[in-house]
Amino acid sequence: MSDTNIQVLLARRPQGWVQEEDFSIVETAIPTPGAGEVLVKNQYLSLDPYMRGRMNDARSYAASVALGQVMVGGTVGQVVESNNPAFPVGATVVGNLGWQLYAVSNGQGLRIVDPTIVPPSTYLGVVGMPGVTAYVGLFDIGQPKPGETVVVSAAAGAVGSVVGQLAKRHGARAVGIAGGAEKCAYVVEQLGFDACVDYKAENFREALAAAVPNGIDVYFENVGGDVLDAVLGHLNVFSRIPFCGMVSQYNESSSQGFRGMGTLLSQRVKLQGFIVGDHLDRWPTALSELAKAVAAGEIAYDETIAEGIHSAPSAFIGMLKGKNLGKQLVKLS
Amino acid sequence: MSDTNIQVLLARRPQGWVQEEDFSIVETAIPTPGAGEVLVKNQYLSLDPYMRGRMNDARSYAASVALGQVMVGGTVGQVVESNNPAFPVGATVVGNLGWQLYAVSNGQGLRIVDPTIVPPSTYLGVVGMPGVTAYVGLFDIGQPKPGETVVVSAAAGAVGSVVGQLAKRHGARAVGIAGGAEKCAYVVEQLGFDACVDYKAENFREALAAAVPNGIDVYFENVGGDVLDAVLGHLNVFSRIPFCGMVSQYNESSSQGFRGMGTLLSQRVKLQGFIVGDHLDRWPTALSELAKAVAAGEIAYDETIAEGIHSAPSAFIGMLKGKNLGKQLVKLS
Repeated sequence: MSDTNIQVLLARRPQGWVQEEDFSIVETAIPTPGAGEVLVKNQYLSLDPYMRGRMNDARSYAASVALGQVMVGGTVGQVVESNNPAFPVGATVVGNLGWQLYAVSNGQGLRIVDPTIVPPSTYLGVVGMPGVTAYVGLFDIGQPKPGETVVVSAAAGAVGSVVGQLAKRHGARAVGIAGGAEKCAYVVEQLGFDACVDYKAENFREALAAAVPNGIDVYFENVGGDVLDAVLGHLNVFSRIPFCGMVSQYNESSSQGFRGMGTLLSQRVKLQGFIVGDHLDRWPTALSELAKAVAAGEIAYDETIAEGIHSAPSAFIGMLKGKNLGKQLVKLS
Repeated sequence: MSDTNIQVLLARRPQGWVQEEDFSIVETAIPTPGAGEVLVKNQYLSLDPYMRGRMNDARSYAASVALGQVMVGGTVGQVVESNNPAFPVGATVVGNLGWQLYAVSNGQGLRIVDPTIVPPSTYLGVVGMPGVTAYVGLFDIGQPKPGETVVVSAAAGAVGSVVGQLAKRHGARAVGIAGGAEKCAYVVEQLGFDACVDYKAENFREALAAAVPNGIDVYFENVGGDVLDAVLGHLNVFSRIPFCGMVSQYNESSSQGFRGMGTLLSQRVKLQGFIVGDHLDRWPTALSELAKAVAAGEIAYDETIAEGIHSAPSAFIGMLKGKNLGKQLVKLS
């Protein structure tokens, strides 16, 4: 066991694209758990698009990270000291313990998981927050019927990859949008989508039209910008847009206006923003179904794993630029 | 009975704001009803914002009016000749018989109404399509809870005036947005809204903030543009935006982009376009409740009535510019 904790702090608020200099990495003493508390040694850190929003000062659905504070983030790790009988030493726990090697927790927001059913890292991805985001957005808001067409952007990512596979299992046509031929091949061949369209290709709009011959009934939106604009022309009457992110816009100081209001009206579209944390009642069902399907090999997933906490800033920047395939993680120990 | 029919035709597609020259007025023979058909002498013509969309060639939820064809529009009138026992001579009927004095109908889309319960003109307004639009948008999509704040734009208009009064009856706080001090006074004093804000006033944004101290839970949207932009900053978490029109944008060749996607996400807003014609199952309930409330004097309404079919084009243009108070009608006979 190392003698020191290592933490990644928010050093300054990004202007436009995040830079490594926006973070600072410090060594501190490993904290000591008090009464009712546990010390967790983190094994994996999850890197997610929402973290970009926390780096801003602006109004959002969750508080900003203060300058000089540890970056927020989901983690999976082991309890190494315990003053809380609910979390014994040796338990594998998922929580939001941030970008650091060790953390003390009073147990709030901590959840024991079984690393023998599925690998511990998946509790940060397909059997964790991104998987539940896919599940809730698709089924509770998107409500696809068998035979309908579901399109998902960032289809090779942690959320999008699950959306398409769940849509297929439900009997819908699943069409992904992803950046680059390699990702698109992965989405079709490994994840089993019916089609995937490369938004970086010159013929993107033609390829999208060809991939949705019956129009689009559900568009699972998490990128915004030009991709959203292209999708609008194919929305069917009464289509639904669950909407949980705009990764293409997070780094733009002045995002382009959305020109689709006329389409939302003419096609009577429901567009609904959601945050998976609002749907805590749905987590047990979603996690149970996802764990079963992953354990049975019925849902595929991929992980892009950066090694060591010092690589977290560059891995985060890479993820915002779409360099990851599947879930982006940092292996901490 | 006049010897000729008079019709208003679409003469050319408007560029930007509608002009009187976009219409032509012609005299034609009064048509003769065939087997199963009736001849209706129209009494009132309804003028509604949706008609602006029908004048375009663009994709919309309904077909464009072809050049040289009679403009579409809701009407109330009397059956003057009948070869259809379901619609006897003398019956007062509501239908979509267009901008003309006489029309033949086979009965499809025609509905007999009782002009002794409420005045016949109200079947085109508060007890007609605009009233049902208010009812369906507010209750089925907006779903206000007692104590919540409902904001409606174009509050002095045919739809908005009903939205606010229904919201009040339901126990919500009703705040209108309208153009000019006179309309705002009408909305508060005659319609009983809790507050009304003048979007043309210099202090519009401050006044809006003061009128919604607890934020906005339902924003009934039918104007778009700057008003929508101002509202966004006050949307509460889980707020709902029923959305049935963008009258401020209909005449702009290039509408401004909507900059509120970030707010829809951070506040988890549901924005849903709807067309009242999609909700035929709700019409009987809505019309029955509205007729009862109007007959009992519990829902107030106003009408702006232009005299004679030749005044229809200028009255329509005036309505698009917000010159009407309440329902805009043309008295045809």
